[in-house]
Amino acid sequence: MLRPVLALALMATTALAETIPTGDLGLVVERATGSLLVVDQSDRARIGRIEGLGDLSHASLVYSPDQRFAYVFGRDGGLTKVDIVTQAVVGRVMQAGNSIGGAISDDGTLVAVSNYEPGGVRIFDADTLDMVADIPTDSKTIGLVDIPGRRFVFTLWDAGETWIADMTSGEAQITRIENMGAFPYDALVTADGRTYITGLFGADNLTALDLWQDKPEPRPILPGYAAGREGLPVYKMPHLEGWALAGQEFVLPAVGQHEVLWVDARDLTETGRTATYGQPVFAMARPDGRQVWVNFAHPLNDTIQVIDTMTKAVIHEFKPGPGVLHMEFTPRGHEVWLSVRDAGKVMVYDTRTFEKLREIDADSPSGIFFTARAHRTGL
Amino acid sequence: MLRPVLALALMATTALAETIPTGDLGLVVERATGSLLVVDQSDRARIGRIEGLGDLSHASLVYSPDQRFAYVFGRDGGLTKVDIVTQAVVGRVMQAGNSIGGAISDDGTLVAVSNYEPGGVRIFDADTLDMVADIPTDSKTIGLVDIPGRRFVFTLWDAGETWIADMTSGEAQITRIENMGAFPYDALVTADGRTYITGLFGADNLTALDLWQDKPEPRPILPGYAAGREGLPVYKMPHLEGWALAGQEFVLPAVGQHEVLWVDARDLTETGRTATYGQPVFAMARPDGRQVWVNFAHPLNDTIQVIDTMTKAVIHEFKPGPGVLHMEFTPRGHEVWLSVRDAGKVMVYDTRTFEKLREIDADSPSGIFFTARAHRTGL
Repeated sequence: MLRPVLALALMATTALAETIPTGDLGLVVERATGSLLVVDQSDRARIGRIEGLGDLSHASLVYSPDQRFAYVFGRDGGLTKVDIVTQAVVGRVMQAGNSIGGAISDDGTLVAVSNYEPGGVRIFDADTLDMVADIPTDSKTIGLVDIPGRRFVFTLWDAGETWIADMTSGEAQITRIENMGAFPYDALVTADGRTYITGLFGADNLTALDLWQDKPEPRPILPGYAAGREGLPVYKMPHLEGWALAGQEFVLPAVGQHEVLWVDARDLTETGRTATYGQPVFAMARPDGRQVWVNFAHPLNDTIQVIDTMTKAVIHEFKPGPGVLHMEFTPRGHEVWLSVRDAGKVMVYDTRTFEKLREIDADSPSGIFFTARAHRTGL
Repeated sequence: MLRPVLALALMATTALAETIPTGDLGLVVERATGSLLVVDQSDRARIGRIEGLGDLSHASLVYSPDQRFAYVFGRDGGLTKVDIVTQAVVGRVMQAGNSIGGAISDDGTLVAVSNYEPGGVRIFDADTLDMVADIPTDSKTIGLVDIPGRRFVFTLWDAGETWIADMTSGEAQITRIENMGAFPYDALVTADGRTYITGLFGADNLTALDLWQDKPEPRPILPGYAAGREGLPVYKMPHLEGWALAGQEFVLPAVGQHEVLWVDARDLTETGRTATYGQPVFAMARPDGRQVWVNFAHPLNDTIQVIDTMTKAVIHEFKPGPGVLHMEFTPRGHEVWLSVRDAGKVMVYDTRTFEKLREIDADSPSGIFFTARAHRTGL
């Protein structure tokens, strides 16, 4: 009689230790080892590691609405569901041969994955990971995002089309928008889910769509944006996800140039440029929009510059260490976490004083994802 | 030997049941009974009740960054800390005789309360509820909000001044801004923490401050906004917290009129008006900004109207029941919860189909607060 009770008590004691609120947690991708560090923002600490996620190069992830589960999109086509409370893999499917990115529906019931091989989008039940829709495109798909109304938007590299998949009926109802431009390589949606913007390899502009229109029409923006691209080698394509609202403008890493572009958030015209230390990879606005933090392509990827939004001037520059790959702000912006890959560290900074508050050991850290993302659209 | 072990097992089993993620939870104020319902957005269910909070008329609350604790501001001057994981009051101080509203600092370490009697603001350690700063004002204080950089902003009813309290040094450093106008009765800050706007009882305009300026200057906006106020009795002062960004505009309940005002989010000029069923109390934008939901003052408070942001036209009207006091959207806007006080229900609706999805029993429900608020500025 006694032993089962003791065993139960021990099990339950373990569970007690897991009685953790999930609002200030996060996951850090450890690319080389196919693992995720579980981190606590308030304690500035790692609190666990989840292993067995396969190839995590260029991996990203999204969170369930309750901030308990993460869905991890691996480059190898793996879709892995992890539980950050129990710190375990709770589901995994190899859903394609080569994939890039994913999204979760506004109601948290559907997870979509964007695939290169075979080209298309596959949509899965968020509970079971059973496939509920298969949308072949005969094209690599890029720029997959969620928008309100149980919809996903994505773009076809080969065909230059953007598709909207409406899942409200349970089956995918597709709206095709042609003539987005030649070879769209990435896309983003604004935080309100209204404006979808694609970057193009084959044209000297970007293309915007107003998703509030019944029939969104492609609209070229920033013509000449890539002029002078020959001037400097493009070591790393800028991530369009880096677009972020800073005051009344978006900030955009310029392609092949040592500068960031400022774009009016309302009419999407260029409003200014700021010279930077290197070719920007991410230009990320602090959540309040007052600062923009920029990291750079190899070989200048040991440096961060901070730009003030009011003056568009660089107000701070420092070298966290070799291989600064990613940045993530705390939800209200008082601190920022940096992945410094070749130092094997995640570093936490105060965004007001620029003081380093903590170093956390990590194995080749890359993407950092805080659970507050669960409540935002289009990430 | 056996009994303590069994007791431990039972205790721990209870704890097991509490291993809950906190990202999709919320609290509903039950005004008459001084209690809070704990609710789960995903399950559309009540999962518990916390009692013993004193006078909860006009009560509001804020959340800790980990979304585990709520700080409840009662009209009786009580500041109560509740744990939504264990569903218990874990701290309570009677910090003034009559208070209205509060805020939590961006780093989650400080909770501030705005008091009528005695007038001023008191700031407490979020862990212990020990008072760390007392800021007497010789005036009722209103419109208390947090802004980035461990700062709070509030306004003096009698003196017509706005004060910024900077707590970065641990002690309150006060910046006083005079000439805000006669009898400011409420205020708000935009979601980026930049623009602070006060409503005035004693003048026919509102006053705005740009908090990004080193020395913010009061700027009158919407002159003539209250013209025609005599036309209809003001049963209920509109809540300025209802200002919300809908596309490129803010929506504002008009004072004493059956209409909402549209205001350009950039230059704060009026851009339009929409006639409504009654005097609006809250005009709240769905998180994506595409819809605005409006409730009304007594005796027309059984009705909701939904306005489309693109056309500024009412697209839906319905009567949830008597005494619709408050609305709260799920963080990505797919559903909305309504407090229908005199029906003793909280009702959950799909914001796309307008279908009622659930009724939840509640005792005179008023304010609804979802935990995603933890990650937003100025609420």
